[in-house]
Amino acid sequence: MVASTDVLVEGRHFRTDWSSGYDVGRKAAAANLADVVAMGARPTALLVGLACPGELSVSWVEALADGLAAECALLHASVVGGDVVAAPVITVAVTALGDLQGRAPLTRSGASPGDRVIVTGVPGAAAGGLALLEAGRSDHPLVSAHRRPTPDYAAAQRIADGASAMIDVSDGLVADLGHVARASGVRIEIAAARLPMTPELDSAGRLLGVDPVVWALTGGDDHGFAATVPRPLDGSGVATIGAVLEVVPGESPGVVVIDADVPARTGHEHFPSPPSRSGS
Amino acid sequence: MVASTDVLVEGRHFRTDWSSGYDVGRKAAAANLADVVAMGARPTALLVGLACPGELSVSWVEALADGLAAECALLHASVVGGDVVAAPVITVAVTALGDLQGRAPLTRSGASPGDRVIVTGVPGAAAGGLALLEAGRSDHPLVSAHRRPTPDYAAAQRIADGASAMIDVSDGLVADLGHVARASGVRIEIAAARLPMTPELDSAGRLLGVDPVVWALTGGDDHGFAATVPRPLDGSGVATIGAVLEVVPGESPGVVVIDADVPARTGHEHFPSPPSRSGS
Repeated sequence: MVASTDVLVEGRHFRTDWSSGYDVGRKAAAANLADVVAMGARPTALLVGLACPGELSVSWVEALADGLAAECALLHASVVGGDVVAAPVITVAVTALGDLQGRAPLTRSGASPGDRVIVTGVPGAAAGGLALLEAGRSDHPLVSAHRRPTPDYAAAQRIADGASAMIDVSDGLVADLGHVARASGVRIEIAAARLPMTPELDSAGRLLGVDPVVWALTGGDDHGFAATVPRPLDGSGVATIGAVLEVVPGESPGVVVIDADVPARTGHEHFPSPPSRSGS
Repeated sequence: MVASTDVLVEGRHFRTDWSSGYDVGRKAAAANLADVVAMGARPTALLVGLACPGELSVSWVEALADGLAAECALLHASVVGGDVVAAPVITVAVTALGDLQGRAPLTRSGASPGDRVIVTGVPGAAAGGLALLEAGRSDHPLVSAHRRPTPDYAAAQRIADGASAMIDVSDGLVADLGHVARASGVRIEIAAARLPMTPELDSAGRLLGVDPVVWALTGGDDHGFAATVPRPLDGSGVATIGAVLEVVPGESPGVVVIDADVPARTGHEHFPSPPSRSGS
């Protein structure tokens, strides 16, 4: 079996004026369920530690529980226990358990030169949604990607069978694929131009004057999946965005972004110390 | 396997001026390990979610990690993962996993009329220690029982083999045995005079003008063990404090304290609604 734990804190990972209790429940469950799925396991159970102020409304907590249960139901998992304590800020600590069903866990260390790099979903959508909320544009459709990320569990489960390494993207592609690159001792090259793009992401970028590629590379909380695969992978919802290469003599393992389409970032961009967030 | 989660919050479960990081680590691990042991399982792994202010010293966090590891080492378990996030107050969310090694879990619902009620350790010691700290008597030896409870895991593992029900005492005997009584549909009678007493507990009670029996019956955080056993149980560190009876017609399952030795509480004392704390 595998286990994963993630802590969400009010004011840092969510704001009660931007997200409902239901949204926070969906997101807290998704963050943990995605971790378990990324290890190639079937999520079975969630334990939830909730610390919150006494004046928090019961309906908010009930909505949180509903959100946790709804996200679990997508994977036939359930909340099996927990703990509730008083605290000055809402803190949701979730631990997810998963069953490997006899298989070895899928780790970050299996990427080999020659593998393709694939992603599910739309990396950067959650970061774009957060940027919109921070800019007061809560009317934009992309904010739902921050409030309630929708990891493509089915695609990840399909990928898991043939992947050499997999990770859920909670800190942005550069940071998270950086974990894979260092654990595997390889160089990972991403083509920014191959990152999935949607009209909503494009519109949010233009609205805020931000290149959405930056959200995809450095933004967190999508909880989509990135994987390295030895063979091409068909199927909807999966995009090939790069390749695994041998480490060039004199360089360290890491992620390199090739970006011919963004003038300000021509040629190579190296991220020897990718921006990382606590809370990943 | 079994899993248990507990959340400790600064200001509620500990104060940094009363407990070191090491103390909090020991206590956070003990609270969860005891839950797992009380289910008859062998603790294997801890996951730790830590939310804390950025200005918290690194040495405090390192001491916390040392305390968690030291308590785990008592049971050959270890911390296998976690998450660290920023938050205004220190919050330690621990999940413990345990291996039942093929046996059925020991639950709260197996107590039968005729069973004896036994406890390990000294119920009320942690509550007495906390009362001393609140009264400014940090020099008293009993305060260590609050700072760093010492569940008798070995005794609990010995008891588990022959117990019909077991629970770790985190909310006081009345509340915790109340869970057993209601889950088992029985009446549990405790003789207050049979509760373990130590010179430290006695001295703390006299110092503060409190009957230590009150701490044992209603105080939390000892993380010792209470169990019901069909046969007498020998061995050190275990005290028989009561018996399991059939529910009297017209009464609900619950805990009754018989206390011939405390004049203010002669005869029977009923706790139809035992005081309970969130966070158990």
